[in-house]
Amino acid sequence: MKVYGHPLSTCTRTVLATLAEKGHEAELVLVDLTKGEHKSPAHFARHPFGVIPSFEDDDGFVLYESRAIIRYLDRQLSGPSLTPAAPKAYGLMEQYLSVEQCYFSPAAFKVSWERLFKPHMGGGPVDEARVVEGRQGVAKVFAILDPVLAKQPFLAGDSFSLAEVAWLPHLTFFLTFDEEKALLAEHKHVAAWWERISGRPAWRKVTGA
Amino acid sequence: MKVYGHPLSTCTRTVLATLAEKGHEAELVLVDLTKGEHKSPAHFARHPFGVIPSFEDDDGFVLYESRAIIRYLDRQLSGPSLTPAAPKAYGLMEQYLSVEQCYFSPAAFKVSWERLFKPHMGGGPVDEARVVEGRQGVAKVFAILDPVLAKQPFLAGDSFSLAEVAWLPHLTFFLTFDEEKALLAEHKHVAAWWERISGRPAWRKVTGA
Ligand SMILES: N[C@@H](CCC(=O)N[C@@H](CS)C(=O)NCC(=O)O)C(=O)O
Ligand SMILES: N[C@@H](CCC(=O)N[C@@H](CS)C(=O)NCC(=O)O)C(=O)O
Repeated sequence: MKVYGHPLSTCTRTVLATLAEKGHEAELVLVDLTKGEHKSPAHFARHPFGVIPSFEDDDGFVLYESRAIIRYLDRQLSGPSLTPAAPKAYGLMEQYLSVEQCYFSPAAFKVSWERLFKPHMGGGPVDEARVVEGRQGVAKVFAILDPVLAKQPFLAGDSFSLAEVAWLPHLTFFLTFDEEKALLAEHKHVAAWWERISGRPAWRKVTGA
Repeated sequence: MKVYGHPLSTCTRTVLATLAEKGHEAELVLVDLTKGEHKSPAHFARHPFGVIPSFEDDDGFVLYESRAIIRYLDRQLSGPSLTPAAPKAYGLMEQYLSVEQCYFSPAAFKVSWERLFKPHMGGGPVDEARVVEGRQGVAKVFAILDPVLAKQPFLAGDSFSLAEVAWLPHLTFFLTFDEEKALLAEHKHVAAWWERISGRPAWRKVTGA
């Protein structure tokens, strides 16, 4: 199996974490965003929208879009299932996958972009208004998750699922600096959940931590 | 079952179309966006992010986020399955659900908002630059779908799936006016697919056509 992506890309990491949780490994073929390789003809053949990641199975089957790839891998590969079998827990997993995609990650990325990535890439001064906006968005999401995670250890209920896998990449970058760690600490059930999920061997393997 | 939403909202229609395809019916409880009812405490209790739709099952189980609700309903209800059993077809369904959400609908909505909704809502003059931008985005998506739909009748392969259900609402509004219909006609396999899916009894029921 091959994953075409970049080790620091959140969407690539979601795929790599799924593979690691299932006890599998794929070759990571580097698509260097800084060199514009994601807009090359070779990459467009693997992902017509010119973003990463793209996935190629052993038999040549190609799939793109991170959240499609992880659902496919979970169904296709041996290893522990990351999708609850019960319809309600499955529905909740899907709900929190959507919350991650629609509300959490766009807000968290405003902060990580301004504070973590932009300075490294010579992107100019930090836009403090965007940081505040991002933090407010994340604070709202944490406030919504906190009572949920007071009642159950994971987003879908009793067990770790693809929902957690999808939250980890943006959450990890968001929690780089002290101000954001303090925001997490204000939501103690979210903070306890973060401890539970970020220490997993699969996630450590992906981040090299 | 209850769906809290609005009959003209695309996300509400995705849920209603899923129910209709499965041969089920739910009570549609109107959340009047024009009166701000989606920002009322009653609605926040059903959807903490204050958007529609939200779903309530017969036993009181509440779920929000349209694309989570449709996956739950498909698994939970009797009736034809709208999710392929084979992993590859399932992966493709998920890929095209993501393409709809990430690339197609944001572009299509620029056009429908400017040309269809804004004029009705006294939103001021049409922003022609946004219309052009939206049309270009949709043209790109159609160009990517066309060779796929030349080889197979539906996005996931041989059978109609949740991917189609999720494309129908924005596609229907986008195709209101002649210029957009002409853009569709330039992509003959997409046009043939549109004929196949838009004429389905379930979709006619939802749109009252
Ligand atoms: N919906 C896509 C989003 C992919 C995406 O935005 N990838 C980023 C890296 S995390 C990328 O390729 N950015 C480069 C660009 O947008 O040009 C997915 O989930 O796979
Ligand atoms: N991710 C949500 C999006 C829901 C959404 O944006 N709904 C629109 C109507 S189609 C809405 O409530 N708009 C009012 C608002 O954003 O204030 C879903 O898929 O259910």
